[in-house]
Order: sequence, then C-alpha cells, then structure tokens
Amino acid sequence: MSQRTSRPLILVTNDDGMFAPGIARLVSIAQEMGEVIVVAPNSPQSAKGHAVTLEDPIRLNKVDIFEGIEAYECSGTPVDCVKLAKNILLKNRKIDLCVSGINHGSNASINILYSGTMSAAMEASIEGINSIGFSLEDFSMNANFDHALPWVRRIMEYVLSNGLNDAKLLNVNIPHHSLSPIQGMKVCRQAEGRWEEEFVVGVDPRGEKFYWLTGNFTSADTGPDTDIGALREGFISIVPSLHDLTHHRSIEHLKALEEITAAL
Amino acid sequence: MSQRTSRPLILVTNDDGMFAPGIARLVSIAQEMGEVIVVAPNSPQSAKGHAVTLEDPIRLNKVDIFEGIEAYECSGTPVDCVKLAKNILLKNRKIDLCVSGINHGSNASINILYSGTMSAAMEASIEGINSIGFSLEDFSMNANFDHALPWVRRIMEYVLSNGLNDAKLLNVNIPHHSLSPIQGMKVCRQAEGRWEEEFVVGVDPRGEKFYWLTGNFTSADTGPDTDIGALREGFISIVPSLHDLTHHRSIEHLKALEEITAAL
Repeated sequence: MSQRTSRPLILVTNDDGMFAPGIARLVSIAQEMGEVIVVAPNSPQSAKGHAVTLEDPIRLNKVDIFEGIEAYECSGTPVDCVKLAKNILLKNRKIDLCVSGINHGSNASINILYSGTMSAAMEASIEGINSIGFSLEDFSMNANFDHALPWVRRIMEYVLSNGLNDAKLLNVNIPHHSLSPIQGMKVCRQAEGRWEEEFVVGVDPRGEKFYWLTGNFTSADTGPDTDIGALREGFISIVPSLHDLTHHRSIEHLKALEEITAAL
Repeated sequence: MSQRTSRPLILVTNDDGMFAPGIARLVSIAQEMGEVIVVAPNSPQSAKGHAVTLEDPIRLNKVDIFEGIEAYECSGTPVDCVKLAKNILLKNRKIDLCVSGINHGSNASINILYSGTMSAAMEASIEGINSIGFSLEDFSMNANFDHALPWVRRIMEYVLSNGLNDAKLLNVNIPHHSLSPIQGMKVCRQAEGRWEEEFVVGVDPRGEKFYWLTGNFTSADTGPDTDIGALREGFISIVPSLHDLTHHRSIEHLKALEEITAAL
C-alpha cells in the first residue's frame, strides 16, 4: 500500500462571482487543507439553477486574485465552471472535494433548485466528487462571515477525513450573524416551501411594459427535523442531498398507467 | 355540491420556444381537453435548468399563433414562464394541469436537472399543480411526433381524471420515431447517468480562445426498472418525480456531524 503523499485536491466555485467576499473566505480555508483550484463565474450567476451553456462559446481567464492560488474566471454558469475545471483545467485528475460558496443568501428548502451555488456542487457530485455547498442567511455583499468560518472548516475536515458514504452532496446553510453564537449543527431534511411571487410591473423608457420578479419565501414546514427549523433555532442546517429525483413511493401507485394503450 | 361546469384549465409551456413544432402538437391536444393558455420562451431555452431571471426585467408579448388560444411569448426562462402565467396572466386562478414540451430531445435520467422543459413542469408542481413534462428522443426541429401523440393524449387524460396522488410531476420520455410502434408505457425510476464532456477548443476572430461544450450521455444503469432501459426497449418511460432532494437514508449516518463543535 502506498501512503498518501500529496495533499487533497479541492475545487472551489460559487455563483456570486469571483469577486464576492464569500468565495474569498472559502478559498482561505481550503488553502489550509490542500491544493486548491478556483473556477468561478466572471459575473453574478445567482438563481441560474442547473443551467449549462450550449449555444455560446465559454471563456476562461486566469486571474491573480488569491495569493498562491490558481484561479480562473469563467464566462459561463456555475455548472459550466465545474465542467471546465474537471475536463479542461484538471484534465480529469481526481478531485477530492468540491466546495461552493460561501453563498450570500440562504439556499435552504427548495432554494437548492434555483441556486447556482448548489447546482455547481451537485454537478460535481454527479461526477462522484464529494461536494459541499455553503450558504449564509445574508444576501448582503457586506455579510459578516466570521461566525461561520470555524464551522465551515470543521465540516470540510470531516468530509475530507470521513467521506460522505452514499450521499455525495451536502447543502449547508448558516444562520445570519445576528443569530450568533451558532448553537451547533443539525443534520436534517429539506423543508417544503415556496416563493410567494410579486412582480413589479413597470414601463421602460421606450414605453414598453416590463415585469420584474421579486417575492418572499414562505414555509409552513419548520419542524426540528427540517433545515428551515434548524436555522430558526440558530443551528447550521446540513441536508444530505441527491440528484435522483424519482418519487419512488409513487411508482407502484402509478403502475395503472401501464395498462393504458394508445388506442381509445 | 356544485357540479363542475367549466372545462379544466391547462397551462402549456416548453423550453424550445414558442415556434418549436413540439409545443404546437401539445397545444392541439390540450385544446381538445380544456381551456388552454400558452406561455413559452421567445427564444430557445434548452438546458436552462431551474434558472429564474432576477437581474433583468422580463417581457411578455401576446402572440396570435395558435387559433383560438391565448398565447404569450416571454423573454425569460421556462421557470419564469410558469411564474408569470400563474401570478400575472391567470391571477392565481387554479390551474388543473401544466404540460411542458413536447421537448425536442430526451430528458431521461439526470437530464431532468439540466432541462428547462422539466424545470418548468417542476416549478408548477412546487405550486401544487399536477404537471407533466413530455420529451421525444429526437433533437431535430424536424422530429416526427406522430407516433407519440395518441400516448400523450392518453397520459394527459389519465392525469386530468385521476390526479397524481402524492407525486405532482411526471417526466415522460418517448422513443424516437424509428423505434415505433411504441411497445407501451413503463412507470420507472430515473437511471443513473452522466455526460462525458468534450469541449471543442477554438480561437475566435479576435484571437481569443474559447471552449464550446458538447459531449455524449452515458449510462450503465439500464435495467428494465429505469427510464433509459424502458426507452431502449421501445417503451415510453414515465418517472414520477419530486423536488425534495434530501438523501433521506443518509441523515442517520451523518448524525456524527452534529457532535462536531466549532472549537478545534
């Protein structure tokens, strides 16, 4: 048996873009633990979900922003960043951990679906890479991450040391700084929730009507076994997550559909 | 008890855009069954995943393309189309069914994550609306849908009559025309799979390097209980799908994380 001599290879990405404060904090922690490569969007890509760029070329530019760290700006989506890191920049070298974030804003509950931060981490997990998306319950670009950092470090250490077994992806959300000190961590499930949309309706300078999406997230599913419940109590929520969207327990019920034929 | 006197309200959308042949076929079937409203992107939005438009205004334009049907082009993503339909155009009237597609190209296996067609249907399902995404295993804009239409009609009839119980979303994929006659339908699970990416690397007219994403979908998970397996045998695959991404059976295993504290 050969002993491991090299440091773990850690891919860092996000959806707020290369110049968001959250990614700088994540890079500085990753740097303590291994060899780091950063590939992040060159512009904010919040709420891009699992979008990939098929119709346009994608650009990569090496940037010298984190001292001693190889970092590339990417013109594509967060998921594109992971694909380019793996295939082009790392030429399919084994990545030991992918971390995405720290996102400015919560990605708890169904926000995992809309989030570019979580979609990037999920893309890595589809490739079999242990992945963690970190998000802070504070949308501000001046968000205070100080209370979060020791916890982020400990979670990354845990995953590097212990792996994630079947789960390949963690959705980690951290309470707002005003709720610190953090009470601890809860491993929990994704709460049900939805957005109550409000569209701002306006007229542009050319006289054309427009709609601008805004709204409020609401959830009535806030028990102690949920991510929303954990956050409200001042805990970090950790939801092991997957990319198999099958509603397994409905398969049997829907077998009746198999009896239907095309003929009327 | 008041008897139902009105026809069901059906929302039709897609990700290939308002002028793709697939949506026209879906509209003509929906029209037989109920009151129809169409809200679809004004440009192709394939692979947009669950992206929503937050940073830009969205435009809606009424178009007269389907005879006797209210239809709107939307400048946003497929998910935006559903949000605008529900909130602005239908003013939160109860929608009885949302159908998305018929997509030009398969959305089986993990392609549910990348697909704008499926994300639009999923968005409606999050709102509690029974939803079906239909996709044909043929990317061509000249795809032949004829063999698919009787099956699409029967599935829609089934869902309008019987509902979907707990599942609110079906991912329906239809074999390529060359595999017809269709053998029947299989209610099955999402196969594991991944994209083997290949980036075309080029230099643009200004001398700048670019990367263009392409690749091949591969799956080794092709048993008869999977969507990929069903399609290969000439069956329509029906995967009941959900938006709870929790990896439930890992929660217990990962409870060890709760013992970790911020202190080193």
